[in-house]
Amino acid sequence: MPSISQKGRKMPESPIRKLVPYAEKAIKENKKVYYLNIGQPDIKTPQIALDAVSKHGLEILAYSRSEGSEEYRNKISNYYKRNNIPVEADEIIVTTGGSEALLFALGTIADQGDEIIIPEPFYANYNGFATASGVNIVPVISNIDTNFALPPISDFEKLITPKTKAIVICNPGNPTGYLYSKEEIKTLCAIVRKHDLFLIADEVYREFTYDGNEHFSILKDDSIYDHGIIIDSVSKRYSMCGARIGCLVSKNKKVISTALKFAQARLSPPTFAQIASEAALDTPQSYFDDVILEYKDRRDTLVKHLQEIPGVKVGIPKGAFYCIAELPIEDSDKFAQWLLEEFDHEGETIMVAPAGGFYSTPGVGLNQVRIAYVLKRENLIRAVEILKIALQQYPG
Amino acid sequence: MPSISQKGRKMPESPIRKLVPYAEKAIKENKKVYYLNIGQPDIKTPQIALDAVSKHGLEILAYSRSEGSEEYRNKISNYYKRNNIPVEADEIIVTTGGSEALLFALGTIADQGDEIIIPEPFYANYNGFATASGVNIVPVISNIDTNFALPPISDFEKLITPKTKAIVICNPGNPTGYLYSKEEIKTLCAIVRKHDLFLIADEVYREFTYDGNEHFSILKDDSIYDHGIIIDSVSKRYSMCGARIGCLVSKNKKVISTALKFAQARLSPPTFAQIASEAALDTPQSYFDDVILEYKDRRDTLVKHLQEIPGVKVGIPKGAFYCIAELPIEDSDKFAQWLLEEFDHEGETIMVAPAGGFYSTPGVGLNQVRIAYVLKRENLIRAVEILKIALQQYPG
Repeated sequence: MPSISQKGRKMPESPIRKLVPYAEKAIKENKKVYYLNIGQPDIKTPQIALDAVSKHGLEILAYSRSEGSEEYRNKISNYYKRNNIPVEADEIIVTTGGSEALLFALGTIADQGDEIIIPEPFYANYNGFATASGVNIVPVISNIDTNFALPPISDFEKLITPKTKAIVICNPGNPTGYLYSKEEIKTLCAIVRKHDLFLIADEVYREFTYDGNEHFSILKDDSIYDHGIIIDSVSKRYSMCGARIGCLVSKNKKVISTALKFAQARLSPPTFAQIASEAALDTPQSYFDDVILEYKDRRDTLVKHLQEIPGVKVGIPKGAFYCIAELPIEDSDKFAQWLLEEFDHEGETIMVAPAGGFYSTPGVGLNQVRIAYVLKRENLIRAVEILKIALQQYPG
Repeated sequence: MPSISQKGRKMPESPIRKLVPYAEKAIKENKKVYYLNIGQPDIKTPQIALDAVSKHGLEILAYSRSEGSEEYRNKISNYYKRNNIPVEADEIIVTTGGSEALLFALGTIADQGDEIIIPEPFYANYNGFATASGVNIVPVISNIDTNFALPPISDFEKLITPKTKAIVICNPGNPTGYLYSKEEIKTLCAIVRKHDLFLIADEVYREFTYDGNEHFSILKDDSIYDHGIIIDSVSKRYSMCGARIGCLVSKNKKVISTALKFAQARLSPPTFAQIASEAALDTPQSYFDDVILEYKDRRDTLVKHLQEIPGVKVGIPKGAFYCIAELPIEDSDKFAQWLLEEFDHEGETIMVAPAGGFYSTPGVGLNQVRIAYVLKRENLIRAVEILKIALQQYPG
């Protein structure tokens, strides 16, 4: 039998998805499962986006342009300008999800064996994209005790080698919910300028900030126009994860022309989803106001109830809709599996994402889980109650 | 300014898309352009697929499973079985176009610096996927004089090294229209068995065969179940290129479990497009009968009229909807650009795909173009007439 590639063997299993078989088994056993594990919001997609697809009126479902349709890119440019991020249509390449934007970005800036520095914990799938691209992730540790604030500059500089090509951040952060301050972004800008690196910012949760904190996009700092690459997506913004539409944004023309060659090879992003995404840009502000109020309430509910459980420590999220919780257990992989396989409280249990997969340093985060607050208030309360009871009963 | 990766600099420009700016200029000058350059059929998408999307009824556009929805994969399995290709649902991973299926396949079987052997000329974007994956294409030459038949076994065996991981074919072939016979496929199967390689077959044009010739899928040969990977797509089959739905098929469980890890990293294929693709599987046979009659008539029309031009040689396609034509010119890149920029006949011109991009051997195919017969009969006749006049007037 011919052999699988080393790369293929190294590809990580998704920490979020590997528990799915256990969840399916639990459901077959008629357990009710509260899903705290995945960032699939229960928020309705804006009707305007869904309707645009219903009325598509197409006779031939044709390729679009590789970089996305001109109309859509013009509207994205307007969206950025409304958010005080000065981006033109020709600085945008529409991608198949933020995922593809990150793949294109890594291919554009890094070769086999090159390195990218990422504050840890980070979005688990970065491991997959880095492995697929032959790029090594060098983690810089951020800590639950400082609520996952940006590590000191010296921590970054210690890690920079001739192979370092970029610093990658997710802001607001998945899985921490951390929102970098303007000062922290400026610090990162200074580092990438000094060391001639790229700064790749995954800003897909841009709208989701709480407590009056404002998101500061990397492209609000004009000193890093040649260094900055934004990864973006409609998935969370409009609760349309299934669209698979994102974009790569850069004011560096070489980055755009190179990423475009990757985009041309795969022909075009999906057409129906572009129709939905273009229409979604007309979503009224009231939609976001409601959604953000809802998430803020959920965050407050979740954090309050988690903090009441003895031995549980929570990173308080300032954005996005995740938090990292440290539990009084040793191995959250085993705990998460036990919750699905062996535990229930009155026929109900919960599914959490073990946090080990959000670290690339082995052995770190094993007593942590990521919790996504994508459920309604009353379900969140019940889910945390189940967690509390489970921790009392857990033999591990 | 930080530098672009070597990979990024090596990424080929799409030979099909690089002429687009010239075509846009021609159109601005009010020229009518007949597009012979791209495999975007003018055939209508089956209404049943378009209607399914119109009636989607979704409230939340959610992720699907990374491997594609179970219902859809079950229906694809039934489709293969109807075509006497014994494939089960768990041997299928739904991908974002055939493009992504090929990327997953290369990632699954090959590491940086590994080699794949492909009969040349080949689908130009294979160059892009190979570069993106760090894999080197080793071409085995097929020739217009033998109508692009499979080169002799000895030609393949001469090229096999310890780095060789797979032979990749496109059957029926883009850009040649060549349809491999059952005997040729069996020959390839024998080679991959003997040398323990994978055989990757891009079969996206499976339905498009003419003159009573039957397509022989690699998975009809059970001796290579561990070696075979099929790349498939709905793009051409149902004239829905803009869906971006394909699949990777293998009976090798390690291939599937590894490809699934790549699929998990990018979360899921597009949801709307899966709705369309699932519905498209109910397209009645009469649709294909009509479409294939139409393409056969177009092929006959195209070949007949091309053969009447002095100095033009045509590879006669037995499948798909492309042919390679050798023209009495030296540089088809320049000729294609000249057609758009400087030439017109009564305000009309044509766009062709220079064939150099379909070869990886430098300097080969420069006097050839790929012509896609995706236009109506009368337009094809007019387009070939324009080509004839252009060749008479071409100063190059």
